[in-house]
Amino acid sequence: MSIYEFAKSIALLAGERIREELSQELIIETKSNPNDLVTNMDKATEVFLVDRIKETYPDHHIIGEEGHGKDITSADGYLWIIDPIDGTLNFVHQQQNFAISIGIFHNGEKYAGVIYDVMNDKLYHAEAGKGAYLNEEKLPMLKNTALVTSIISMNPNWLTKDRTREMYVPIIRTARSARSYGSAALDFAYVALGIIDSYITLRLHPWDFAGGLIIAEEVGAVVSNQLGEKLDPLHSNSILVANQTLHQELLADYLLPFESHLRLIHSGPFSHR
Amino acid sequence: MSIYEFAKSIALLAGERIREELSQELIIETKSNPNDLVTNMDKATEVFLVDRIKETYPDHHIIGEEGHGKDITSADGYLWIIDPIDGTLNFVHQQQNFAISIGIFHNGEKYAGVIYDVMNDKLYHAEAGKGAYLNEEKLPMLKNTALVTSIISMNPNWLTKDRTREMYVPIIRTARSARSYGSAALDFAYVALGIIDSYITLRLHPWDFAGGLIIAEEVGAVVSNQLGEKLDPLHSNSILVANQTLHQELLADYLLPFESHLRLIHSGPFSHR
Repeated sequence: MSIYEFAKSIALLAGERIREELSQELIIETKSNPNDLVTNMDKATEVFLVDRIKETYPDHHIIGEEGHGKDITSADGYLWIIDPIDGTLNFVHQQQNFAISIGIFHNGEKYAGVIYDVMNDKLYHAEAGKGAYLNEEKLPMLKNTALVTSIISMNPNWLTKDRTREMYVPIIRTARSARSYGSAALDFAYVALGIIDSYITLRLHPWDFAGGLIIAEEVGAVVSNQLGEKLDPLHSNSILVANQTLHQELLADYLLPFESHLRLIHSGPFSHR
Repeated sequence: MSIYEFAKSIALLAGERIREELSQELIIETKSNPNDLVTNMDKATEVFLVDRIKETYPDHHIIGEEGHGKDITSADGYLWIIDPIDGTLNFVHQQQNFAISIGIFHNGEKYAGVIYDVMNDKLYHAEAGKGAYLNEEKLPMLKNTALVTSIISMNPNWLTKDRTREMYVPIIRTARSARSYGSAALDFAYVALGIIDSYITLRLHPWDFAGGLIIAEEVGAVVSNQLGEKLDPLHSNSILVANQTLHQELLADYLLPFESHLRLIHSGPFSHR
């Protein structure tokens, strides 16, 4: 079994465990703020995934949202970046619309991405250079769109904050419509599917985007920070993912005019995991 | 077969037709603005539903989004209010996340509501006074929530417009999180399921809310305009749907302070269908 096949198999297994245990009572704690939740299921799923990876590939490195590999600063060898439950708020409030996300890099280069929409049993996956799939079906390359006929995914919260409102309001005003689903990994998957045309958010951690980055790029999406720079998978980044012409339009007409503002936001504690 | 059972059966049949014909090319036109789309499928589905109702109940009245019953101004007798495809943008861009919505009133009183999430084959339905169901499963009564731990569904667009920004930004800032799904009927269904705690939007037509109103109230949701007034099913309304305590909190602390502003918005052409 290749590392890619193995990654898919443990995502499916972890998802099966979550579905089986969903009826049990959750223990919910908060992390950085009252709305940043973590449950016993996030933690148990991370332990399950890390244990499976370590058993099979003892020399691989692993970074996980719930604390594994916090000290890793190098991308040498194989590096797994995992989010056991992306969209924990959805998990807690909806028992759906959350995903397991896995991104694997080899010596800093993309190797494979897996996003598992657990309750819909939809496995998005890609091996770098070989195309992206939803379950067994190969996804077509993205069509280009202009902002006026595009659907943008953005959390409405960014439109309420002073430091981001001015940048993002013109985008949403110009777009055909806006959506917000509450899972970054699924937002990348939805761009890859072509059901939204762009996903824009000010700050994601590596585990939020590592899997999605690899999958979205395989269908021709451009994934960068909001200044058009390559994402660093070891640090937090601002995010702009879109089909090629929409990415150009958003960057040139809406985001680069705020370059100094974005550089200020990017600096300081922003890029820490 | 009761009228309620009949309504469910034609929603399922119409949904089946949509699924079968989804692979055919859509003819897309615009209505009130470039983002207000209608397709041949919306029109054909309305004709299908209207024909079935008229065959079986020739004396019933029918209002449909795509033009049927535009002249109806009285709620006497049985009145069907139907949206053949609620969430047409989702239908066109995503081929999912749209619904067939039917609300039936008898002499102006609620009789039954049906919302069919076509691609997920989920039928939400309720007969007034007898509880709401998802497929065969009875939905539990809603739990009360406070805004700080609530998920609000609101189209991000309302946060970009001068006349609504000031009212809605404090709500989104205070809420635990916000979502936007792009189908009013499904938003009512999601409140009824308890996966979002409130749906807030400035203007819906009767066909957007007629089915959802009846279903949501059956699980204890409070459905009103944004001044807490009963919805008029023959006219457009502003919408506030939420569990009981959240509805009170939103009304008292966030919306009623804008009463004169809302009355101004409500007046004039606002309430026309």
